[in-house]
Amino acid sequence: MRIKVAIAGYGNLGRGVEAAVKRSEDMELVALFSRRDPASIKTCTGVPVYKMEQALEMRDQIDVLILCGGSANDLPEQTPAMAAHFNVIDSFDTHAKIPAHFEKVDEASKKAGKISIISVGWDPGMFSLNRLYGQAILPHGKDYTFWGRGVSQGHSDAIRRIEGVRDARQYTIPLEEALQKVRAGENPDLSIREKHTRECFVVAEEGADLARIEREIVTMPNYFADYDTTVHFISQEELDRDHKGIPHGGMVFRSGTTGLEDAHHHIIEYRLQLDSNPEFTASVLVAYARAAYRLNQRGEKGCKTVLDIAPADLHPADGAALRASLL
Amino acid sequence: MRIKVAIAGYGNLGRGVEAAVKRSEDMELVALFSRRDPASIKTCTGVPVYKMEQALEMRDQIDVLILCGGSANDLPEQTPAMAAHFNVIDSFDTHAKIPAHFEKVDEASKKAGKISIISVGWDPGMFSLNRLYGQAILPHGKDYTFWGRGVSQGHSDAIRRIEGVRDARQYTIPLEEALQKVRAGENPDLSIREKHTRECFVVAEEGADLARIEREIVTMPNYFADYDTTVHFISQEELDRDHKGIPHGGMVFRSGTTGLEDAHHHIIEYRLQLDSNPEFTASVLVAYARAAYRLNQRGEKGCKTVLDIAPADLHPADGAALRASLL
Repeated sequence: MRIKVAIAGYGNLGRGVEAAVKRSEDMELVALFSRRDPASIKTCTGVPVYKMEQALEMRDQIDVLILCGGSANDLPEQTPAMAAHFNVIDSFDTHAKIPAHFEKVDEASKKAGKISIISVGWDPGMFSLNRLYGQAILPHGKDYTFWGRGVSQGHSDAIRRIEGVRDARQYTIPLEEALQKVRAGENPDLSIREKHTRECFVVAEEGADLARIEREIVTMPNYFADYDTTVHFISQEELDRDHKGIPHGGMVFRSGTTGLEDAHHHIIEYRLQLDSNPEFTASVLVAYARAAYRLNQRGEKGCKTVLDIAPADLHPADGAALRASLL
Repeated sequence: MRIKVAIAGYGNLGRGVEAAVKRSEDMELVALFSRRDPASIKTCTGVPVYKMEQALEMRDQIDVLILCGGSANDLPEQTPAMAAHFNVIDSFDTHAKIPAHFEKVDEASKKAGKISIISVGWDPGMFSLNRLYGQAILPHGKDYTFWGRGVSQGHSDAIRRIEGVRDARQYTIPLEEALQKVRAGENPDLSIREKHTRECFVVAEEGADLARIEREIVTMPNYFADYDTTVHFISQEELDRDHKGIPHGGMVFRSGTTGLEDAHHHIIEYRLQLDSNPEFTASVLVAYARAAYRLNQRGEKGCKTVLDIAPADLHPADGAALRASLL
């Protein structure tokens, strides 16, 4: 009996989940739900497409529903609504709003006797896990999180909203000097500017004032003003050719000491180099969908996060096989 | 109410646990048990010392007993024996014997209604966890584990058994070229010789045949014959001055692809740089002691490994605080 998975939302993340379920031998993809007209959607695997409202009718045919909408507009409503009927997974990533989101989803899942796992992905997600493991093992120490080199969609969008900009792609880049200090155990205090730089590739409208656009970017509050930012103007052809991908990644460090006199220093580093941010995030979602199914089968209910899930529940093999091969 | 922890065995690992419990605000160290005469033991924190046989009399005063003996001679008997009376943690690290050890300990713990967590540390332990997470997230991929730069006690002991050797210290060193290939996503097939080199610092007896000692080291089956090994003869003073520490570490990689056509490549790297192998291992043991206590409080019983423990159970903060600060 394979785990029956369905997807709600068919953007980059939904397509990533479609591919990740396809390669999970213990799972099958049974349905895709979209707000768009199903007839207009061409899937990569031929999975049947339905309108979002039809999901409830298929409740009995779905073990886990993976929600692939956005954190700004879709998930705040969709996750609690779907959690009232399904085991659900989402990648809600508005860090400050996670506690409130958790409460709403938890209530819905408990009432329904289902499991939900929210904020799954790599940050929040695998990075959160590594912050937790690091703090638990080395209570005397410091955390560092770096992002990149990778594409920030939010920063790319912010540039696109500037007058005279046709298209843009922004890369977040960790500073090598800062990484070296952390890896050397120096426990530096790092300002925002000392941790990351920002590099922007911008396609301007014909005749636009490039100097003004550059100035508006590098002085933009919150997004760029606190960073050293580089702006390159390129053609649409160059952007499409050289900056089509959505790579990302980063590192989580825990740098701490042990011993009654703090004599020994230790550094834990967790590093991701991702060719495709949405496909990697999707792969994490699918692993946690397996866990959601298993927890629900064991009679558990309510909302969980990656912090609450035992690692063994993510892996298709059983406990004895894992102990024999991984320990 | 702090968690009452006791230690069985007072070598490097036991001293590391003593220090790690001391800095865990939710724990207190209530007893140390040793096979040696308690009067002969001077602890670092003043914790009361008892004979090993007295442990059972103190059953009601101990929430978790951390077993700090060796995997070769102590733990195979001691963990099942103590699991019949206590929640226990051990660092059993004879990889091939873990499944059999698990079965014996599981039976004892279940009968006693207690929790045991075995094979805790960094390998087995945190490295096992990272192999599991990597496989679960990227099912199409390869695992790589590298060790070092660090001291291998087993290899150092093997050198000390050679005639004419007074003392020795062996370092395991990962090959930079191999690491670069893995980090570049080349998914290389690596022979034993291509992954690690071994560097030996040897103190010879006066008048010993150095050429013979070196030959016996580099040709020693299992330990050195499959590696490129370097031997340095130094004085006891130099060994004591420059090679007193017990550093170790290493990396676990998962290198895999996503997408229906495997178009995107991802690399997950987990890296440890440890000044003190026993103190870091001890810190992991203490975090899992917290989890053992909590699981037992919730009525669970039986043997677990790091693969079975939800990350949140390792951290002193509660779920709401973790969600607010770590996700």
